[in-house]
Amino acid sequence: MERRNFLKTSLKTLGAGTAGVVAAPFVNTASAQETITWNMVTSWPKNFPALGTGANDFAARIERMSGGRMRVKVHGAGEMVPAMEVFDAVSAGTAEMGHSASYYWRGKVAAAQFFTAVPFGMTTTETNAWLYNGDGQSLWDEVYAEHNLKPFPVGNTGTQMAGWFKKEIKSLDDMQGLKLRLPGLAGEAMSGIGVTTMTTPGSEIFTSMQTGVLDAADWVGPYNDLAFGLHQVADYYYTSAWNEPSAVLEGTVNLDAWKALPDDLKAVVTEAARASNLAMISEFALRNAEALKTLVDEHGVKLRSFPDDVMSALHESSREVLQKQIDSDEASRRVYDSYRTFQQKVRPFTDVGEFAYLKAREKQLG
Amino acid sequence: MERRNFLKTSLKTLGAGTAGVVAAPFVNTASAQETITWNMVTSWPKNFPALGTGANDFAARIERMSGGRMRVKVHGAGEMVPAMEVFDAVSAGTAEMGHSASYYWRGKVAAAQFFTAVPFGMTTTETNAWLYNGDGQSLWDEVYAEHNLKPFPVGNTGTQMAGWFKKEIKSLDDMQGLKLRLPGLAGEAMSGIGVTTMTTPGSEIFTSMQTGVLDAADWVGPYNDLAFGLHQVADYYYTSAWNEPSAVLEGTVNLDAWKALPDDLKAVVTEAARASNLAMISEFALRNAEALKTLVDEHGVKLRSFPDDVMSALHESSREVLQKQIDSDEASRRVYDSYRTFQQKVRPFTDVGEFAYLKAREKQLG
Repeated sequence: MERRNFLKTSLKTLGAGTAGVVAAPFVNTASAQETITWNMVTSWPKNFPALGTGANDFAARIERMSGGRMRVKVHGAGEMVPAMEVFDAVSAGTAEMGHSASYYWRGKVAAAQFFTAVPFGMTTTETNAWLYNGDGQSLWDEVYAEHNLKPFPVGNTGTQMAGWFKKEIKSLDDMQGLKLRLPGLAGEAMSGIGVTTMTTPGSEIFTSMQTGVLDAADWVGPYNDLAFGLHQVADYYYTSAWNEPSAVLEGTVNLDAWKALPDDLKAVVTEAARASNLAMISEFALRNAEALKTLVDEHGVKLRSFPDDVMSALHESSREVLQKQIDSDEASRRVYDSYRTFQQKVRPFTDVGEFAYLKAREKQLG
Repeated sequence: MERRNFLKTSLKTLGAGTAGVVAAPFVNTASAQETITWNMVTSWPKNFPALGTGANDFAARIERMSGGRMRVKVHGAGEMVPAMEVFDAVSAGTAEMGHSASYYWRGKVAAAQFFTAVPFGMTTTETNAWLYNGDGQSLWDEVYAEHNLKPFPVGNTGTQMAGWFKKEIKSLDDMQGLKLRLPGLAGEAMSGIGVTTMTTPGSEIFTSMQTGVLDAADWVGPYNDLAFGLHQVADYYYTSAWNEPSAVLEGTVNLDAWKALPDDLKAVVTEAARASNLAMISEFALRNAEALKTLVDEHGVKLRSFPDDVMSALHESSREVLQKQIDSDEASRRVYDSYRTFQQKVRPFTDVGEFAYLKAREKQLG
């Protein structure tokens, strides 16, 4: 079966601890006339649905728009560097580009977490507005410049799911002592309500669930979760995505390599990133829907929402985690102040606009 | 006041009946080495918020990415051709490009309406998924190719509002005989419940409301409505956007001009369109929120939703209008079959994902 082969390959590559071949640091200083060839290292198995293929599409857009003057070779996790070494590799110039998620680097740059997802935070459209029309991009630039990196939003998973659980959750008591895979600020918030959280690499989730190392796991959403076969190791699939109401995928460019690019290719990379962002959002909207249908209709997955006491506890815990984060780190405080202020500014129109429409559509169409 | 000057300029240009200077038909057949200069005619006052500036940004992206090899000169409504002659001008090659909305051309291409907005139809993200990952783009290409045009989605207003009303609507009875500005399929649906609808050009809405030619009017959303000063001529502002849950702005390219472009510039235009689409969605998310606050806090505008009997009647009437449209036109049937099937496919994940999250956020954050 195609999916099984895919899964097998994935397990070998995503977040695997084995170091790949590491190329020598190398930065282009090509003039407008030369052909520029860059390497892009990623945190995804090669061609992984939407994430890996999105990185491929990003590279292809750059190549097409530059008429082949700029070529970007995309590497799956473990090919040049392991999944969790993308940040360091691009920072050092081992590769000129990376595609990953900023909250993986919380140990190096605490403030980076806010550029992926915030518990009870902004939707995809609101987040993009913060990045493109608010202070989001300039703050991200500032935080990453210290690491010799230029970041871009290059994709978004859209609204995620809250994760897979082996047993149904009927009250806050049922959460106590559960071993759950959940990274980032949301993982900390879960710890605050009595859950034992781990940042298991994506590739190890399936086996960890199977062997009982994990009782529950959040990965992405139906499309990616189906690809990893998570319905085979848990029956209950939880919404809503209090943890990741949207999740930005990051493209990074080594800052020396970026500065050496001619202006037209800077524009090509910038707009290819923006186009890839929308392309991935659209792809997830369709593929998640198709996969959700498959999970429910063919695999009998049971869709559930957390009970009210769990949601209230998660909200309270999230507030405490965010407060702790901004109290302990100046950059985090500045980034989250901007994020929170922006969310408060844009949310009233989301509520009067999109949210009001979704309610009206539900009422009329059923 | 800046806004008043802007309004004055707008009134002269948007949808004005006066014909502008019409340039001679002209198609580039430049090789990759030559500089290509195109004209883009638009249906918006020059630099009109988000719509006009979005067209400017689209042109600027093309110029930046091509390193100046391709330049696009943007013309406001009435400068080369009137607002409502964009389709014909680009079709004939008077200008190589256009920026407008496809439902303005319903008299020429009935099926074109479905590429802007459908009553009780898809959200912005769902619509983009249909265009980019479903059959939307290929159907649009097919329908427009007969008119020597290549279309692209180049922007989206996001969720609109349902419009401005001089008097509060407390029941279906209050709608009877109202004179309302509302174009497209939604306008027809309104006619079906006893409202007299007109397709007043944007530029004439303010005056028509003031003089009593109109009792109510839908334009776009807070950002654009504030720019036209509609709060000065009506107190009640209605949600939700049953009429235009999202509205695609269209870029058109003369098909002969398109075919003559080298492949890299075809890619530049295609991806500039996609990037501009996302840029406009993000801009509206922020600017609509800011304008909504101004309208409510500074101008005392009263936000309202239609009563249930009005919404139910509009839903029933919309179904009839859509059925009539697909029964009378083969192309409309094919396009709407694709649209409806896609909506049914993607909506379950929107509901489990984004909609479920918005409900959870409301419950926890208030």
